[in-house]
Formats: sequence, structure tokens, C-alpha cells
Amino acid sequence: MQHFSSLHKIFEEQFVKTEFPSEPKNLYDACNYFLQLGGKRIRPVCVLMGNELFDDIDPDAFEVANAIELFHNFTLLHDDIMDQAPLRRGMQTVHTKYNEATALLAGDVMLVKAYECLTKIKTEHLKKILFLFNKTAREVCEGQQLDMDFAQKAASGEKMIHVNFDEYLHMITLKTSVLLAASLQMGAMLGGAGLGNQQHIFEFGKKLGIAFQVQDDYLDAFGDPGKFGKQAGGDILANKKTFLLIHALEALPVEGRKQLEDLMDNDDDNKVKKVLQLFNDCKAGEWAQSLKEKYFKEAMTHLENIAVTSVRKNELEALAMYLLQREH
Amino acid sequence: MQHFSSLHKIFEEQFVKTEFPSEPKNLYDACNYFLQLGGKRIRPVCVLMGNELFDDIDPDAFEVANAIELFHNFTLLHDDIMDQAPLRRGMQTVHTKYNEATALLAGDVMLVKAYECLTKIKTEHLKKILFLFNKTAREVCEGQQLDMDFAQKAASGEKMIHVNFDEYLHMITLKTSVLLAASLQMGAMLGGAGLGNQQHIFEFGKKLGIAFQVQDDYLDAFGDPGKFGKQAGGDILANKKTFLLIHALEALPVEGRKQLEDLMDNDDDNKVKKVLQLFNDCKAGEWAQSLKEKYFKEAMTHLENIAVTSVRKNELEALAMYLLQREH
Repeated sequence: MQHFSSLHKIFEEQFVKTEFPSEPKNLYDACNYFLQLGGKRIRPVCVLMGNELFDDIDPDAFEVANAIELFHNFTLLHDDIMDQAPLRRGMQTVHTKYNEATALLAGDVMLVKAYECLTKIKTEHLKKILFLFNKTAREVCEGQQLDMDFAQKAASGEKMIHVNFDEYLHMITLKTSVLLAASLQMGAMLGGAGLGNQQHIFEFGKKLGIAFQVQDDYLDAFGDPGKFGKQAGGDILANKKTFLLIHALEALPVEGRKQLEDLMDNDDDNKVKKVLQLFNDCKAGEWAQSLKEKYFKEAMTHLENIAVTSVRKNELEALAMYLLQREH
Repeated sequence: MQHFSSLHKIFEEQFVKTEFPSEPKNLYDACNYFLQLGGKRIRPVCVLMGNELFDDIDPDAFEVANAIELFHNFTLLHDDIMDQAPLRRGMQTVHTKYNEATALLAGDVMLVKAYECLTKIKTEHLKKILFLFNKTAREVCEGQQLDMDFAQKAASGEKMIHVNFDEYLHMITLKTSVLLAASLQMGAMLGGAGLGNQQHIFEFGKKLGIAFQVQDDYLDAFGDPGKFGKQAGGDILANKKTFLLIHALEALPVEGRKQLEDLMDNDDDNKVKKVLQLFNDCKAGEWAQSLKEKYFKEAMTHLENIAVTSVRKNELEALAMYLLQREH
């Protein structure tokens, strides 16, 4: 098994060669512009790691990895339109730099391109990979719809609507975790893994994805802004649903909950500070850390249960540690 | 070979059973709403006709036909967003009835659903059908981008930009003709047609599609509004590029051309009447009729060249006649 960084390098070298046609120029310039903004490439590298857990990397894994990364970028392009986001990775979003029609079409054509990559794989692999890819793609769209529904309700002028923990977890699972999970499973499929092992690696990815999102929500509120590279309390200012907010609304006593709802419904110069105080009142930070720990442990149990020698699992374990900022 | 109307009925009966999941409700209600707006179903029925030209209908043809119709609806959903169209078939568009995010995601998930249908076909057919489907999907996006580029330039406040005949023909071919052509070819593939016959049926569909668009542009300007069911001169009022406008700008003498450009750049109470007069000055109507005739004849030549007994071709010939409003 190779380390994430080695596989990342190998992935990147062949991914930059992904070629779009030259015409129509606006359409494919927009695609190339967006792809060169970069990214951590965690999902496509997970295809390679999932494959290598069971066998030498099959050349098909690179096509699947490319498809996964193109799919991920398709979702980002369309999410940016829906969120009316001006920036992505510190650079102009496509709908800002070009226009909305071009961003929409660049996303569409990137999804088609993902299927073009998949179509190149060996016939023996094609149907089962497509089946999981389609299912995952549908679920990611469903997750984004739920996210929009939650935000829509919050912005509709009514009092903030209540989204409970299970609903939020379901949305996050669809929107972010299943793609990581399916990336690992597709790699495992190409490596000849049996159904039981495929299920375990899928669950490993899913739990890891949830733990990562809990951490993301936590760091937005309590992280070091310099280190984290995002605006502190950005989610709070945007009234974004997070694990912390969901928990606080459920855990605070009536009075605290009312204060929190008022802060979400109205502007307040000290909004971030006041919301953080309420989070502290109900120990939302500690709660989130233990929730992250719970999902991390569940992920590791699934990794342990995969029937390959444990030394082969070292690199996936290291990746989980790295993603969740753990040192041991 | 069965008549279009018989196959239409068979297609429709199984297509209405296309099931989306029940949740998220907003997302799939939007999909179901859009699909029940109906449509002529020409493309999916062409899959069945292309198949039946060569052999009995393969059950896979229904999956491909469903995929084609879902893909077509995906493009309409996204086109409506880009065009900011309030109505589709006399009913509210999805972005108007729901919201833009839902319309965007409903389109995305409909494209994924199209691939889910394709994934069901027999492994022996899968790769070649996917290859043509992907290529066609990409080209349709490219055609829409070119259409947007042409409109964008016209709306950018500059003087109207010149799009020549070849550029317009290329855009129309990608945006509308290749899907009809590929539908026929996919059917032919499933019927076991050889490459030569596949090429002829593709070209038949492509030329037919172009002839149909010429007719569409013609009828917008010169058709009987009551019969045609659209606003007379709608394209003229919207400054839309059409075969007639492209021709008039190329065929009119300098003075007439300048008048036409001024009419496009400025509002005028008698705009439709004045533009139609200029079209008449350069015989744009007759020119369009003979252009339509040229593409119709080319289409029929390709149909003739398909190596099956001519009696099998009757229903495709009848469809071409019907689409192009010919009586013999």
C-alpha cells in the first residue's frame, strides 16, 4: 500500500491531462478554469487506496478516480450557483467569472465527462461500477436538495425552522459522506473485494465522512481562524445549520434556546460571540468532539473488520488520522 | 414496422411508470411535475423505430428510449433556467413553480436517472450505447452554450453581432439534430445494424432535424399563429437568431441590412411587420422553403441508402413527411 501523498501525486499527474475539446471556447475554458483551482483530491485517491487494499492498482481505477473527481467538481460548480457564492478556493466562481448559463452548462458537461471516463473501463467492471456511481450521484443531489430545503425554510421569513439531529445527519450523509464511501467501495470492487469487505469499506468511508463534517462544523466555531483558513464563525453569521447549532437547539433550556433563535432571526453586532457563549453553555463543543470520536471509532471498527492483513490497512488508517487531525 | 402513433402509445404506457423515489419530496415532485407536462416523445419513439427497422424490438430499446426522453427533459429544465422562461407547454416552469435550486437539481438528477436506465441494458450493448449517448449529451451541451453565446453577444449592449450561416447551422445541429439522429442510431445498434447502415440512419435523423428547425423558424415568421400555437413573430420580438434572420443579413443590400440591424437594436412598435417586410424583400421565406426541401431530400437519400427492404422504411418516411408537414 502506498501513502496518500504518493497516490495523490500519481493521480494528479494523469488527471491534469484530462482533456476537454477546444470549442465552444467559453464552455471548456470554464471547465479548465474550475479544475485548475485544485482541491485535496481525497475522493479520487480513495478510489486508488480502496483498490490497493485488495490488489495491485487496476488501470480502470484511474478512470473511476477521474470520474469521481469530475463528478465532485460538477457538484461544486452547481452548488456555487445555488449558494450564489462569489469565491471558491479564494478565486472567482465560474458563474461570477463567466456567467450563470456557462456555469450551469460547464457543470452539466463535466458530469457527462465523468461518464465518459467510466465508459472506458473494462466491460467486466462497467455495470457494477455504473450502478454504484449512479446511486451515489443521485444521493448527492438528494443531499443538496435537503440542504437547500433547510436553508430555504430558514430564509423564508418565517421563524427559523427546526431541523432535528437525525434529519441533519441524513442530509450530511447524502451530501458529503456517500461519495467518499462509494469512492473507496469502487476501488475495492476493482480490487476484487467480496461483498462483505465492500460493505465494511463503504461504512468506513461513510463514518469517516460524518466525523470529518462534525470536525468541520466544530472548527468553524471553535477553530483557530488563521490555521483553519476560514472566517471564524462564518457558519454562525450565515445562519447555517451545523451539528453545533442542531445540538444547542435541542440541549439548551427554554430561555437559552429562545435567545439562540432570536439571534438567528435578527442581526446583532455581537452575534458570533453571543452564539458561541450559548454553545458553551450547553457544552456543544465537547459534545461535538465526542460525536466525532464516536464516528471515528465506528469507522475504525469497520476498517478492522475488513478481511485483509492489518499491515495493508496502515495507509487508510493514516489517512483517517490525518483527516481528523489526530496524532496517534 | 409499426406506425409512429402505435409505438408512441407503447412508449408512453411504460414511460409513465418511470419512478422517482418519494424523498426528498421537493426534488422528485419537481421531476414528476415536469415529466407529466408531456411532449411529442419523438426522440424516444425514434429509438424504437430505429430498432424495428432492422429487427423485432429489443427490450433494451425501451430503457434507451426512457434514457433519451429523460435526457431531453433534463436539457429543457436547464434551458428554462438559462432562458428565464416562465412557461413550458403553457404551464409554469420548474424554477418558477418551485425555485431555481430545485430546477437545477431536478435537471441534474434526471440526467443521472437517464444513466440509471442505460445501466439496465444487456452488457453486450452497454458500452457502445453509452459511448454514443455520452458523445451526444456533450454535443447538446455544446450547442446550448453556442446558442447562449450568440444571445449573450446580442444582449451585451454592443451592436448585434453577426453569426453566419455555417455557425448557426453548426449550433442547431448540435443543439437539436444530433439527439434525434443518435436516437435512431441507438435503436439501429440494438437491431444489429452494421456501421454503414448506422451512419445512414444517423444522417437521416440529422438532416431531418435541420429541416424541422428551418420549418420551425419559417413558421414563427410566416405561419398561421392559430394553427402554429405560438405568438406570431415571437422570434423576431425576442431578437432570436433564426435561419431567416441569418439569411436576410447576408442577402439584403447594404441599406436593407442596416434597417434590419437598427430594428434589432431598438424597440419599434411595428417591429414584426417591418422585419417581415425586409424578409420578403430578400425572399427569405422562399429561401427557407427551398433550404428545408434540400435537407429533406438529403435525409430521404440517406433513408433510401439503408440496406433493408424498402417496405420496412415506410413508417420512417411517413414520420419524416408528418414532421415536415408534407402530404405526399
